[in-house]
Amino acid sequence: MPDKVLIYSRLPKSLTQRFSADFDLLDTAGKPANEVFAAEELAQVRALITAGGTPLRAADMERLPALGAIICYGTGYDGVDLKAAAARNIVVGNSPGANASSVADVALMLLLATMRRLPIIDPYVRSGDWVAAKPSPLMKPPSGLSGRKVGVYGMGEIGRKIAARLAAFETDIGYFSRTRYDDLPYRYLPSLDALAEWCSVLMIAVRASAETHHAVDADLLKALGADGYVVNISRGSVIDQAALVAALTDHTIAGAGLDVFEIEPHAPDELTRLPNVVLTPHIGGNTRESHVAMQGCVVANLKAFFAGERLPFPVK
Amino acid sequence: MPDKVLIYSRLPKSLTQRFSADFDLLDTAGKPANEVFAAEELAQVRALITAGGTPLRAADMERLPALGAIICYGTGYDGVDLKAAAARNIVVGNSPGANASSVADVALMLLLATMRRLPIIDPYVRSGDWVAAKPSPLMKPPSGLSGRKVGVYGMGEIGRKIAARLAAFETDIGYFSRTRYDDLPYRYLPSLDALAEWCSVLMIAVRASAETHHAVDADLLKALGADGYVVNISRGSVIDQAALVAALTDHTIAGAGLDVFEIEPHAPDELTRLPNVVLTPHIGGNTRESHVAMQGCVVANLKAFFAGERLPFPVK
Repeated sequence: MPDKVLIYSRLPKSLTQRFSADFDLLDTAGKPANEVFAAEELAQVRALITAGGTPLRAADMERLPALGAIICYGTGYDGVDLKAAAARNIVVGNSPGANASSVADVALMLLLATMRRLPIIDPYVRSGDWVAAKPSPLMKPPSGLSGRKVGVYGMGEIGRKIAARLAAFETDIGYFSRTRYDDLPYRYLPSLDALAEWCSVLMIAVRASAETHHAVDADLLKALGADGYVVNISRGSVIDQAALVAALTDHTIAGAGLDVFEIEPHAPDELTRLPNVVLTPHIGGNTRESHVAMQGCVVANLKAFFAGERLPFPVK
Repeated sequence: MPDKVLIYSRLPKSLTQRFSADFDLLDTAGKPANEVFAAEELAQVRALITAGGTPLRAADMERLPALGAIICYGTGYDGVDLKAAAARNIVVGNSPGANASSVADVALMLLLATMRRLPIIDPYVRSGDWVAAKPSPLMKPPSGLSGRKVGVYGMGEIGRKIAARLAAFETDIGYFSRTRYDDLPYRYLPSLDALAEWCSVLMIAVRASAETHHAVDADLLKALGADGYVVNISRGSVIDQAALVAALTDHTIAGAGLDVFEIEPHAPDELTRLPNVVLTPHIGGNTRESHVAMQGCVVANLKAFFAGERLPFPVK
């Protein structure tokens, strides 16, 4: 009989289908597990699959007395209480780097589309305003990317891929992360403040944590300057969203490209009505190739766990 | 007395202002010169500034009997009858490479935004459909860019910058141009047909000419395949636009990103109502930095001409 695996987060069937070949899936469809399944059934669950951002605290784990493995679909694991898991000897795995290329691509798309004002100019063409020779929304040309100082906050797999892409756009790249990497050809800044002082474009690729919560605040945005841009593809919690809305509204900075938000799915009206933002619904890792890679990590982690082996992709 | 210079194309005042410091500008505002200025005034014009795509034929030159220099604002000079100019010993200059980084950035923006379906997903967030948990337009994930075979058609300054950027996106790059460059690390394909057979993404960076007119036709688009994309930042004439509309409508290819069109400004309804395109109003070179660089080339060309010297930036 196949092992039971709980689908803990709301994940589309199309993404979990592959797991049903090897496991007996109990799909919560994103609802609390104890509302969907009987306690006796949950008592048999030894492993679960979660989107890393979904809250999974000690109390949630207690409802799953046999739980031995938490397998995150994707790179993130910020919703998982790692201490609580460790206290119960629950192993935690993720899909490191599996979606990094896909996420880095979206980071560059957001930056370019924000700087070149795509959400305004594509409709200018589609509406017929261009044909009618109505005044262009780009009568005052925007500044370009080449020659810019670009700061990357966080230098994990995704940060590295963002930096590698940016380098090809003739930019000067600096970064701040807890670790300084001597193998990287980029300038290291000793703090996030120093990075923001140095650059005019900030790419956020840092992991969500208590340490990075609201790290990008009003002062930091101000340091980017009136021709500054910020792009976030990591987690919404890293930016003080209210401060960002204010900075975009009073033109403290020029624009923002956001794939993630403080609460998801929720992009507040203050943000969605701004013309100087590009907004995407957390689709960084949403390509066929990256789903296949992430699913591969999930399957490998689950098979190893049920075989009594170490996870091939553990959260360290 | 400053030398008279005719502004032959429709160019915003903000872009031509810099020239008025050194020259006496006669601005046609895009109208036929003989409708705006008296024949006696035009008879004194020895130099003009034109957008390279604006038609400037033998008959147009005849209305300017003293014309000695045609200075193109930008890289293109496809509207200028070079033979007619040569026959009258009129020198032709342009701004080679001055806008190449800016145009290459837009090429990448168009590719990423088309593949990741930005014109659909930004409105999905803004409209509140995401918050309301309405079905995502990306329920079926698109394929990504990494690992793709990407073909670059034309390997001038812009083609090279597009290829350099694409390489950082972990793609396999091939190109076709009249010249094979041994200094480039990309695969050379011996024809445009061979390039289209080999790749699934085609980036058009070739100069407009009789030779390249409608070079990208129905057969060529078909060769890219159902997961194929085409991006055009050069000139609209290179694509058979009716064939492109058909290929996008019946999903012969997956999508297109277009900054240029067969007739400008004119994006036909058949194109603007498609969901699988990203459309921009010929803004490739439209950044502050690239305008400054292009204006620098124009000024240098004009000063050299009036000083009786060779143009520093001649069309070869």
